[in-house]
Amino acid sequence: MKVLIAIDSLKGSLSSIDASRAIREGISDVDKAIEVVTVPLADGGEGTVDALIYATQGSLVEKEVTGPLGNKIKAAYGILGDNTVAIEVAAACGLPLVPEEKRNPTLTTTYGVGELIWDAIGRGCRDFIIGLGGSATNDAGFGMLQALGYSFLDAQGNEIGLGGKELSKIRKIDVSNVASVLEECNFRVACDVDNPLFGENGAAYIFGPQKGATPEMVRELDTGLRNFADVTYRDLDRDIQHMAGGGAAGGLGAAFAGFLDGQLLSGTGLLLEALKMEENMADVDLVITGEGRLDNQTSMGKAPLGVANLAAKRGIPVVALAGGVTHQANELNRSGITSFFSIVNEPMTLEKAMDTDVAFNNLRMTTRQLFLLISKLKTVM
Amino acid sequence: MKVLIAIDSLKGSLSSIDASRAIREGISDVDKAIEVVTVPLADGGEGTVDALIYATQGSLVEKEVTGPLGNKIKAAYGILGDNTVAIEVAAACGLPLVPEEKRNPTLTTTYGVGELIWDAIGRGCRDFIIGLGGSATNDAGFGMLQALGYSFLDAQGNEIGLGGKELSKIRKIDVSNVASVLEECNFRVACDVDNPLFGENGAAYIFGPQKGATPEMVRELDTGLRNFADVTYRDLDRDIQHMAGGGAAGGLGAAFAGFLDGQLLSGTGLLLEALKMEENMADVDLVITGEGRLDNQTSMGKAPLGVANLAAKRGIPVVALAGGVTHQANELNRSGITSFFSIVNEPMTLEKAMDTDVAFNNLRMTTRQLFLLISKLKTVM
Repeated sequence: MKVLIAIDSLKGSLSSIDASRAIREGISDVDKAIEVVTVPLADGGEGTVDALIYATQGSLVEKEVTGPLGNKIKAAYGILGDNTVAIEVAAACGLPLVPEEKRNPTLTTTYGVGELIWDAIGRGCRDFIIGLGGSATNDAGFGMLQALGYSFLDAQGNEIGLGGKELSKIRKIDVSNVASVLEECNFRVACDVDNPLFGENGAAYIFGPQKGATPEMVRELDTGLRNFADVTYRDLDRDIQHMAGGGAAGGLGAAFAGFLDGQLLSGTGLLLEALKMEENMADVDLVITGEGRLDNQTSMGKAPLGVANLAAKRGIPVVALAGGVTHQANELNRSGITSFFSIVNEPMTLEKAMDTDVAFNNLRMTTRQLFLLISKLKTVM
Repeated sequence: MKVLIAIDSLKGSLSSIDASRAIREGISDVDKAIEVVTVPLADGGEGTVDALIYATQGSLVEKEVTGPLGNKIKAAYGILGDNTVAIEVAAACGLPLVPEEKRNPTLTTTYGVGELIWDAIGRGCRDFIIGLGGSATNDAGFGMLQALGYSFLDAQGNEIGLGGKELSKIRKIDVSNVASVLEECNFRVACDVDNPLFGENGAAYIFGPQKGATPEMVRELDTGLRNFADVTYRDLDRDIQHMAGGGAAGGLGAAFAGFLDGQLLSGTGLLLEALKMEENMADVDLVITGEGRLDNQTSMGKAPLGVANLAAKRGIPVVALAGGVTHQANELNRSGITSFFSIVNEPMTLEKAMDTDVAFNNLRMTTRQLFLLISKLKTVM
């Protein structure tokens, strides 16, 4: 018997890798002869680099870069088994790097993202997987582009400063210092929003407030983004105005797609491919997936559903385990999830259920009981 | 596929019969072709009569009798499919029949139990299954025996009154009015305590306080029980003094065994036999059992464990479902329980988990998910 464990994180209590370990131990409690393959799930958001490193036996690289507030920070990225680079932009410009009282997307920069990319290029890497979630910025990625050699000049012909407030000053884009090696690079960008760069559905209006922007800042940033698109169109003949997803991560979507020829892709599709999920499913008898909470198809993480869909196509049973399952989860049974179970072993508070040890032990126990049943059924069916 | 549902009540939220219905519906949600046999579990305690009536297609008989406080009450008993009578003594002398402020085992009587027996004899019944749980009395069953024709006389030769306080007045037992039909009757008594009639482990000391006895009453009752045993030995040559279980139900154990030739039996064994559990398991592929809470072997209801043991002997997989399962429950896997699962679907309070609707729906959903898995596994194994 061969089992594929492909579970998302149980957010707030277990990482995908720890959840996988709990399941693996639960299986091993029952029968050490069961072959287990673990592919931690990711969808481009938090945990993506760790999951990819784990799955491809890659390694983590630490690098000092410019943080979102302009100070120096340590940021990490992954170099995967096949030399592909995996970067979560949040590592260099994420909201958790900015103390709550300092959150202000007119000031924050993506410069450090460009430094990470440049570091990886220096190591000979050319293929990139970029996760866009969780940025604290709204600078349309011009900071990142500056770190890669792009020059953004104001009316006086001077290089602009850092942060979204500078966007409206841009009058000219100078590409004469852009390294030609960038043309050899291939960026696949996990992008699960389709907001445009600016306008009422754009980066500033939709995501600005959660990054600390006041209504006034939102208007200022939106004007800046609009100016950035205008100058880009005029100087580089690139239309980043109408691009779906251009507004992702404060406009980083537009920078990757418009300046670096990046492909904006569904995070789940991109990651399931990068994790070689189909290949990993080749001769598997059962798939275990899951996440923190199962409600229904729309609320469920796309990665576990993607796994379930792949498995269902092959007729492989899929069991989803979660901290909580609502009665609406019944509709998941029509989306490739054969069965789902809550790991909560008795009435308890949410706080207790989310305790790391409690969740780990409950996940292990539920898995153990499942495999006791499966093993027994195999002998009598 | 044939499934036997033999689940105990989830005390405080679902009766055994309702729990069985939730499971049956969960199975039917998945595959209406699965054959389901339902045998509600009982162990001689609350729900025993209902379970036996359900299992044997018997009927309930209502009868006005003397309640524990001497007032008239409606009490019910069962006449089973094979004409066996099932009586829970609590129906006629149970603690719930006495308001808390009136609980006083020096006053309460088992007279009504005798009236129920007599009513059944009048209907031609001769075989009795008696459940002893939950009595409010400590009269050594002399009230019941009075209702069946026994006479207990004081020093003046007068019939004593009702209640445990009268025990110490007994000087003589007169059997001249005992109906001879009693000799044709066969009493099997579910008795899961082995306390003797009197002494420090006897009925008064061990069970008196929970029935409302003060320390002074306990001493008075114990003296009375001792006198009752002495007179019984002298007048009838019956030793009810050393009998294990004689102290059950305030001495009703001694009355059944010493006066009515009743057999004091393990509740589980007696009930599993009366419910024909072995016959019902004959061609079953899976057994679902369970109860409110699964901790470990010693705390688990003996009826579900009894079912699991019977199934294990036949190699039938057993799934136990419960409102809560602790990590100590893992040891149940060595007692015939193939797997156990909590039906709690997300973090919640005990109060919510025990709500009848919540428990019903959770039990149904968990069953549904289990059978979705089992059905799928059958197609791929």
